[in-house]
Amino acid sequence: MIATEPLPEYLVRRYHGWKATTYAENRAWYRRLSAEGQRPRAMVISCCDSRVHVTSIFGADQGEFFIHRNIANLVPAFTPDGDHHGTSAAVEYAVSHLGVTQIVVLGHSNCGGVEGGHAMCSGQAPDLDEKTSFIGRWLDILRPGYERVKDRVGGEAGMTPLEHEAVLVSLENLMTFPFVREAVEADRLSLHGLWTHIGEGGLMQYDRESGTFQPV
Amino acid sequence: MIATEPLPEYLVRRYHGWKATTYAENRAWYRRLSAEGQRPRAMVISCCDSRVHVTSIFGADQGEFFIHRNIANLVPAFTPDGDHHGTSAAVEYAVSHLGVTQIVVLGHSNCGGVEGGHAMCSGQAPDLDEKTSFIGRWLDILRPGYERVKDRVGGEAGMTPLEHEAVLVSLENLMTFPFVREAVEADRLSLHGLWTHIGEGGLMQYDRESGTFQPV
Amino acid sequence: MIATEPLPEYLVRRYHGWKATTYAENRAWYRRLSAEGQRPRAMVISCCDSRVHVTSIFGADQGEFFIHRNIANLVPAFTPDGDHHGTSAAVEYAVSHLGVTQIVVLGHSNCGGVEGGHAMCSGQAPDLDEKTSFIGRWLDILRPGYERVKDRVGGEAGMTPLEHEAVLVSLENLMTFPFVREAVEADRLSLHGLWTHIGEGGLMQYDRESGTFQPV
Amino acid sequence: MIATEPLPEYLVRRYHGWKATTYAENRAWYRRLSAEGQRPRAMVISCCDSRVHVTSIFGADQGEFFIHRNIANLVPAFTPDGDHHGTSAAVEYAVSHLGVTQIVVLGHSNCGGVEGGHAMCSGQAPDLDEKTSFIGRWLDILRPGYERVKDRVGGEAGMTPLEHEAVLVSLENLMTFPFVREAVEADRLSLHGLWTHIGEGGLMQYDRESGTFQPV
Repeated sequence: MIATEPLPEYLVRRYHGWKATTYAENRAWYRRLSAEGQRPRAMVISCCDSRVHVTSIFGADQGEFFIHRNIANLVPAFTPDGDHHGTSAAVEYAVSHLGVTQIVVLGHSNCGGVEGGHAMCSGQAPDLDEKTSFIGRWLDILRPGYERVKDRVGGEAGMTPLEHEAVLVSLENLMTFPFVREAVEADRLSLHGLWTHIGEGGLMQYDRESGTFQPV
Repeated sequence: MIATEPLPEYLVRRYHGWKATTYAENRAWYRRLSAEGQRPRAMVISCCDSRVHVTSIFGADQGEFFIHRNIANLVPAFTPDGDHHGTSAAVEYAVSHLGVTQIVVLGHSNCGGVEGGHAMCSGQAPDLDEKTSFIGRWLDILRPGYERVKDRVGGEAGMTPLEHEAVLVSLENLMTFPFVREAVEADRLSLHGLWTHIGEGGLMQYDRESGTFQPV
Repeated sequence: MIATEPLPEYLVRRYHGWKATTYAENRAWYRRLSAEGQRPRAMVISCCDSRVHVTSIFGADQGEFFIHRNIANLVPAFTPDGDHHGTSAAVEYAVSHLGVTQIVVLGHSNCGGVEGGHAMCSGQAPDLDEKTSFIGRWLDILRPGYERVKDRVGGEAGMTPLEHEAVLVSLENLMTFPFVREAVEADRLSLHGLWTHIGEGGLMQYDRESGTFQPV
Repeated sequence: MIATEPLPEYLVRRYHGWKATTYAENRAWYRRLSAEGQRPRAMVISCCDSRVHVTSIFGADQGEFFIHRNIANLVPAFTPDGDHHGTSAAVEYAVSHLGVTQIVVLGHSNCGGVEGGHAMCSGQAPDLDEKTSFIGRWLDILRPGYERVKDRVGGEAGMTPLEHEAVLVSLENLMTFPFVREAVEADRLSLHGLWTHIGEGGLMQYDRESGTFQPV
């Protein structure tokens, strides 16, 4: 017996409301999506943070984005060692099976994951350095980015430089996957790096010419 | 230089539309969320599938749900081996740092991941059995569920029994994490198993008494 | 000795039912709300009328709305004279202490308070004009609204124009509070005017461009 | 022009969900309530606090409770001085016009208003003592209760004794209204004092025999 509880009533009510409105109004399309399968244009790699919903920012509806969300929107490097790699599996599925034509990595301000990564890399969070810390081991992915910006992060700039690095490290790591690189080189896939400011609603994108993030 | 491209125009336009409307109307709240941090009530573990957006189904707004999305909404068992474990890191962050009071695992119909898992476990997809297949290795998590329902899956029942197992295996694995078990036993956290039918907009929840999924 | 009676049995039974179900299922969240305090996004100013429950209309759960309810959802003008002002105290607490980012004034059809205000202002209810009538003195707040619509109210339009005024007078008076005006001007707070039709379940909102109430 | 903003989209969606479900299922009753007027059995005087929704605790639906909510569920004494008295107007309307047969005063744990009242009465919040503090002036109503329990409040007991007093002071003040006293003495009206613990879901009622609050 698995220790589950009934769904709280407020969610039950809201679900029934959705069923009677949004669902009812889009039934025909949802049935086609169900029968014919999804055909998303883009994969989005975003953070789990409750304040960042990419479907809201881009007015996206069911069927548009294949969305992977993890702590600090990180992608590890290609490591075909036979272990479980949830992010790598999601990227493989999106590129090799669904044939998405874009991968968008979306970072954000006030990222608790990035802040933890900074604390760990700068020696202020020994608990995250433990082998048993899943958060710490996951944030190890961000170390190369920390090394690049450690002199610029903190103070007035805050965590923004490292939040940008969380996007850039992921974009770099994406290119270590042979199927990603091939698709990019064959012009079947493009990569995009974004960063959003939660409080101000700003959106910046990585500009390859200048090597900086610029307002969209 | 990272090989990024400018954000496609249709997304740029939609973003500016969101900024001028939804953002503008909720600016004060988004600023508070930014300044004071998130305090989500629930973590949702859902699939990357573009047809399943939990925020839509539950009428949720920014700040309500901490959302992790991966292939087939799977949670691996507790394995503190020092490797990258994105899902485990997300669960640890949600429970130990944010103190969410619910974890909802949301499965769905027509799940390509589960279908792949079935093909692999039943010997029809040798490529997924390769050590180099990230998708296959990720779907290994589902094997115990496959063993339980292999006689009932397929045919008229379709993949539904195995899609339900993808929820149940995750709920079981969640309880292997000491910090999850402790929180559940101390009544600080409850677990919920859901499955949604994309085409019909249905929602079922796991009922611990009967051991079956029942309509919400 | 205060002349209280035991709680009627039907309420005792319902309470125990709630405790064993809704409370039990949400215990962890209620404990967090208790330990960490409330952080409501909005204040709602609504009528005491038993037919208007804002939490129902908006599928809201514990913790979402800070709710003040009085006769005819009225807000008096800023009057710092040292007397008891329950509504002003509630507004001050919501804005200055809790930092809510929205104030919603919710009027409604068939409002007995507004009807009384009309009778009084049009000279048909001398008892309400007495200094000793708390209802009459409270409804004095609505007089400026009555003056604006007295030629349009009654007959086919019924009390709707005056019910709308009960919302608009309150919105105007809210802006006479320095801390409300400051918060609005600093984009920390937005105001919203709503009116609901009890029998038809309709919801209208005040549109500042047209100066009219429009369906939501 | 009144500075209102459009209703946030998440509330618009939730409202439409309610309209298509709860409203649709109860249309006939809501129409009768609309056409024939309300006939609530009880008036409830409760706090604005977002964590206390009396309709939830008592499973109440539209039409059952006439609800007045203010800071700390306080009722001032009968003062027919011709000024605006929102709470007194609500009590008058409930008793003299609607003829409710019960008035329930519902206090609660972790009450920010009561805590403020304690700080003020014990000299630790000079700002609340200002004539211009609406919160302070409103909480003056609680002073007689503070005087009675000042030696027992704080420390291990926390604010509970004063939260109980917020209920008792209100019950006493209710009896200073001639129309309340008359109705009580004529057995047309009964008074009830309750206090709920937010985190534990407890409910206590005032017992006139022992002069204490006892579990319901």
